[in-house]
Amino acid sequence: MTNEQREGRRSSGPRRSQEIFDATLDLLAERGYEGLTIEGVAERSGVNKTTIYRWWPSKGALLGSALIGGRQLDLALPDTGSLRGDLEALLRSVTALLTTSPAAEVAIATLGAVTHSSELAGHVRGFFAERLAREQPIFERAVTRGELPPDTDPMLLVDLLAGAAWLRIVFRQLPLDEHFVTRAVDTVLTGAAPAVRTGGPSAS
Amino acid sequence: MTNEQREGRRSSGPRRSQEIFDATLDLLAERGYEGLTIEGVAERSGVNKTTIYRWWPSKGALLGSALIGGRQLDLALPDTGSLRGDLEALLRSVTALLTTSPAAEVAIATLGAVTHSSELAGHVRGFFAERLAREQPIFERAVTRGELPPDTDPMLLVDLLAGAAWLRIVFRQLPLDEHFVTRAVDTVLTGAAPAVRTGGPSAS
Repeated sequence: MTNEQREGRRSSGPRRSQEIFDATLDLLAERGYEGLTIEGVAERSGVNKTTIYRWWPSKGALLGSALIGGRQLDLALPDTGSLRGDLEALLRSVTALLTTSPAAEVAIATLGAVTHSSELAGHVRGFFAERLAREQPIFERAVTRGELPPDTDPMLLVDLLAGAAWLRIVFRQLPLDEHFVTRAVDTVLTGAAPAVRTGGPSAS
Repeated sequence: MTNEQREGRRSSGPRRSQEIFDATLDLLAERGYEGLTIEGVAERSGVNKTTIYRWWPSKGALLGSALIGGRQLDLALPDTGSLRGDLEALLRSVTALLTTSPAAEVAIATLGAVTHSSELAGHVRGFFAERLAREQPIFERAVTRGELPPDTDPMLLVDLLAGAAWLRIVFRQLPLDEHFVTRAVDTVLTGAAPAVRTGGPSAS
């Protein structure tokens, strides 16, 4: 995250918002969405609960801000010099987030809560949109380097890779190794089918 | 689902297991996992609850069987004559499941419950494994037709496509149209990057 982004966040919240966000995600990881309360966040962060309520009228609203502003889900944006390198680093970060405490507990608890709260679902949608916006430079650089056509849809590439990681870790509960990362990126970049055979019915 | 598979299921459950499974998924869709009870399933299906308990000691175990045996999540396996056609049909079915009542409610409620119950997580894992096993013929036919190399990993292709659909529908809450289906399958089959430029640092 850039300093500018952190400043931008700070200006739209109370002074100690970083502590509030971190406490919110810690409590979510420990207790789940049901166990998350603004009182608990106040206690953990040492910020008066009336201050928190002044900025966030509900725990859903607070969690929405914390998902974006908390350190637990922060993602270092790679700049390796190649699209392949950047996507592998990005996918490695996503798999690390989904398998390492406390980010994994935060992600899984949020996932569970999305299905129970339409308000929270809106915040999760905002989280994914913000993350994609931050990932745009990866794709802009790739287009500039001639690694991707200008009409590439970054969201599609991100969703294929992150969705596969998510499905594999959360639903299949299978370990993700480096082999998964390199093969998934390779498939998305160069395709699973030999180029000469993918034209359609002529291959059959 | 083949008759053989249905027979296999029938032989490992009570006579009216189809009604029990369908009632289980209906109640899950209506009430969520917390609201699902074996008593409720007995009432809805008209099967005595002691009979249900004899085969499934817990609602988690019952839901595990119902995910696989219930009609709501059943998926017609395509055989269009080409890998591209089969994958597009498969992805279209997955997106329909995730956006159409009552399958969408079943899928979303199950997703939420996975994060609360390790027992249910095990059953969801079984559901995905069973589904992948049923999808194998799509990939075997593609290899036979020369559309895929013999060492292709079907799970990777399925997870890229289904994961993207899942992420887009559940987390981004964006509509999925036919354009998404064709572009996602095209990317997985032929790659997002022009073949000549994906060799690595030489492109930079």
